[in-house]
Amino acid sequence: MSISTATVKERSLLGLKELSRDEIASILDRAAHWDRQQEKMSPILNKHFVANMFFENSTRTRFSFEMAEKRLGAQVLNFAAAASSVEKGESIYDTVRTLESMGIDAGVIRLKPIGLLAELAKKVSVPLINAGDGNNEHPTQALLDLYTMKQHFGELKGLRVSIIGDILHSRVARSNLWALQKFGVDVKFCAPANMQAPELAKYAPYVSMEEALQADVVMMLRVQLERHGEGVLKSADTYRVQYGLTEERAAKLNAGTIIMHPAPINRNVEIDDAIVESPQSKIFTQMQNGVPIRMAVIERAMK
Amino acid sequence: MSISTATVKERSLLGLKELSRDEIASILDRAAHWDRQQEKMSPILNKHFVANMFFENSTRTRFSFEMAEKRLGAQVLNFAAAASSVEKGESIYDTVRTLESMGIDAGVIRLKPIGLLAELAKKVSVPLINAGDGNNEHPTQALLDLYTMKQHFGELKGLRVSIIGDILHSRVARSNLWALQKFGVDVKFCAPANMQAPELAKYAPYVSMEEALQADVVMMLRVQLERHGEGVLKSADTYRVQYGLTEERAAKLNAGTIIMHPAPINRNVEIDDAIVESPQSKIFTQMQNGVPIRMAVIERAMK
Amino acid sequence: MSISTATVKERSLLGLKELSRDEIASILDRAAHWDRQQEKMSPILNKHFVANMFFENSTRTRFSFEMAEKRLGAQVLNFAAAASSVEKGESIYDTVRTLESMGIDAGVIRLKPIGLLAELAKKVSVPLINAGDGNNEHPTQALLDLYTMKQHFGELKGLRVSIIGDILHSRVARSNLWALQKFGVDVKFCAPANMQAPELAKYAPYVSMEEALQADVVMMLRVQLERHGEGVLKSADTYRVQYGLTEERAAKLNAGTIIMHPAPINRNVEIDDAIVESPQSKIFTQMQNGVPIRMAVIERAMK
Repeated sequence: MSISTATVKERSLLGLKELSRDEIASILDRAAHWDRQQEKMSPILNKHFVANMFFENSTRTRFSFEMAEKRLGAQVLNFAAAASSVEKGESIYDTVRTLESMGIDAGVIRLKPIGLLAELAKKVSVPLINAGDGNNEHPTQALLDLYTMKQHFGELKGLRVSIIGDILHSRVARSNLWALQKFGVDVKFCAPANMQAPELAKYAPYVSMEEALQADVVMMLRVQLERHGEGVLKSADTYRVQYGLTEERAAKLNAGTIIMHPAPINRNVEIDDAIVESPQSKIFTQMQNGVPIRMAVIERAMK
Repeated sequence: MSISTATVKERSLLGLKELSRDEIASILDRAAHWDRQQEKMSPILNKHFVANMFFENSTRTRFSFEMAEKRLGAQVLNFAAAASSVEKGESIYDTVRTLESMGIDAGVIRLKPIGLLAELAKKVSVPLINAGDGNNEHPTQALLDLYTMKQHFGELKGLRVSIIGDILHSRVARSNLWALQKFGVDVKFCAPANMQAPELAKYAPYVSMEEALQADVVMMLRVQLERHGEGVLKSADTYRVQYGLTEERAAKLNAGTIIMHPAPINRNVEIDDAIVESPQSKIFTQMQNGVPIRMAVIERAMK
Repeated sequence: MSISTATVKERSLLGLKELSRDEIASILDRAAHWDRQQEKMSPILNKHFVANMFFENSTRTRFSFEMAEKRLGAQVLNFAAAASSVEKGESIYDTVRTLESMGIDAGVIRLKPIGLLAELAKKVSVPLINAGDGNNEHPTQALLDLYTMKQHFGELKGLRVSIIGDILHSRVARSNLWALQKFGVDVKFCAPANMQAPELAKYAPYVSMEEALQADVVMMLRVQLERHGEGVLKSADTYRVQYGLTEERAAKLNAGTIIMHPAPINRNVEIDDAIVESPQSKIFTQMQNGVPIRMAVIERAMK
């Protein structure tokens, strides 16, 4: 079976920036199909092998993909950096090529080096699904975010979405930006000066916290505490006061506003403990929606 | 499908202290059923997802649960602390809630913080199976211990069981105490002063090593060498002389006495190397019995 | 079912030194059978449990075994040292005996201590497959190497194979030596003085780099950079100049010569970056061939 590179490229999911609005809509529709299934198992991929290649660890995302893959009956092989020979200097490229040689049908990949995923995709002949690459894109996270918004509001067009936090380092912010704008959503950013990505300013304005909270969706980003050395607690506290969704701020939100967060959460930093499971919060709904979204994406990769 | 909290609670296995004698007997009976199966696979749970959530690592216990789950045909997802984002400050609660949101049908959980499991069980709506929580309980270990004793002696009632070692930190000792007493077993403890749990003295007496060895079952506990800093080897040797099941002591046991240990073993500390696989030792039989016990417990969680 | 020790021994694969030429040929033939399968899944072992017990980490080898096992439909349980209680002092023997007690049908094992595998095999009653033990043997690697040579040249007899690098610490070199000589292959070694294994000199001569490159197969070994402390980069560079397959040297190879490497590769140390995927390189073909080889070996273990 010779598969043209174009086809593999079409079945891959590297990011949402380059994906058409129709393609995105079609994934959301198919996720809705999987979401409606009563049966947990739909083993349509029981002769397919999927490798979850996590060169950057993530419990949540790997687990969500694995649920999706197993609900479709796929054979799943997990690779996690910490338990691997990456420390021995083995390059990511060699590992991906190796797993490809061994006969996987698709690879889910998370990695840190910026720009590497695009290069990899040119060189390997199996579809790759981006589970987070550097600060570039995290397409399945944004897809599940759109799905959650659409599920709640019925329609995306015209929604006002504020993304608050470390925009500079956030692949979640970028993937959401690219996708939401294709659907006519009004996106705003809010971030301290040292967490703003200047190159995104032409796509969405940076606004004050006060203005950001006037939205249909308030999406709080995780503060990367691990990026800071000493003084973390002090800066975490300062951050909370200036940019956190505190109980006080949450109380002033419009009744129809929903709260989102890609998780994992720093409770009492970017969002107060009491807000995480408040009625307006969709945080665990997002996690739930991740599974049908990833089923749709995995299924698409095998077509 | 709405499932009442009571039902989920009934399907959970948090500890043996609160479980009735009848419930325990019923699990032992069902384990005997699984033990008799010639067929390795009985895929009655092939539409069910079980998450093994090990916030404290354990090869043996995780592997035993995974064998049990797979023999029942369940879809298994493993989560181990070391390879996860727990280090990033993600709380155990958030992880459990996340995996629950993703659609697992039951969770096997091992964790250190005392009291957390009971709290978790109140908040999540899937059955949880305790695979060891702090120094509180390790119910499946005690169940397999009871199963092993019953298998050997035919009946539990009237047996004399001595549990020797670090009672203070032992969840195995506690789970065995609670369960054995429900079946009319005479339990005795033996421990150095700094390893005694005073609050358990009202349930079982602390006796001398000499007296403890006069029993039908001599259960040696693992000394937690990792709890001590320097001087481990010296204290390990002292421990062996005073509380170890040395070859000399083993030679004086009654012919009908059996030797048990929850493993992993510190050879030549709490038990001499030559005794581990001696004819009176049931240590590897215990491990074997862990699988049908856990099959019974997992099956019960799905009912 | 009582299985005689002899039979278990026959189903194990501890090394190629003791295996007959006919046995090896039969594994290669069966691998060819699996290689020809169009269907990815041949679930003939769907009631069998295989444990991958990696006391020494390896992404590549574990993944290849797991692919092979899953293509045969086996139930797979993974054990990796880093995520285990090995650090707690649990012995490898106890772990293997534990997993055996739990009912695995075969164990794939990688471990460091020299001589331990042979001891283990005497004590356990399930077949063991050596996935690399110390510097002793790595039989499935050599089998896939032979398979790759035979696939390319049609016949092994009369081939000239040069193995270049750290012979002293290489289990790959040893397994290849034992197997290749049974098939009438002319094996030569090439290594710096401090990487020569004197006891192998009676089986294959140590030759100069110039002479080594006059061969049908040039097999480059991985330099164990992690064995050296400081000064690695300097010595890596020196190594490359003296023993690396540089672009310059590769250009002088005979047109019919193929290049092999067991991977993982240190690019620009033992082999130049540009050579890894050159037309003469069979490196990723080797990885591909590892899966049918391991299918044959796993299948054989279950007979």
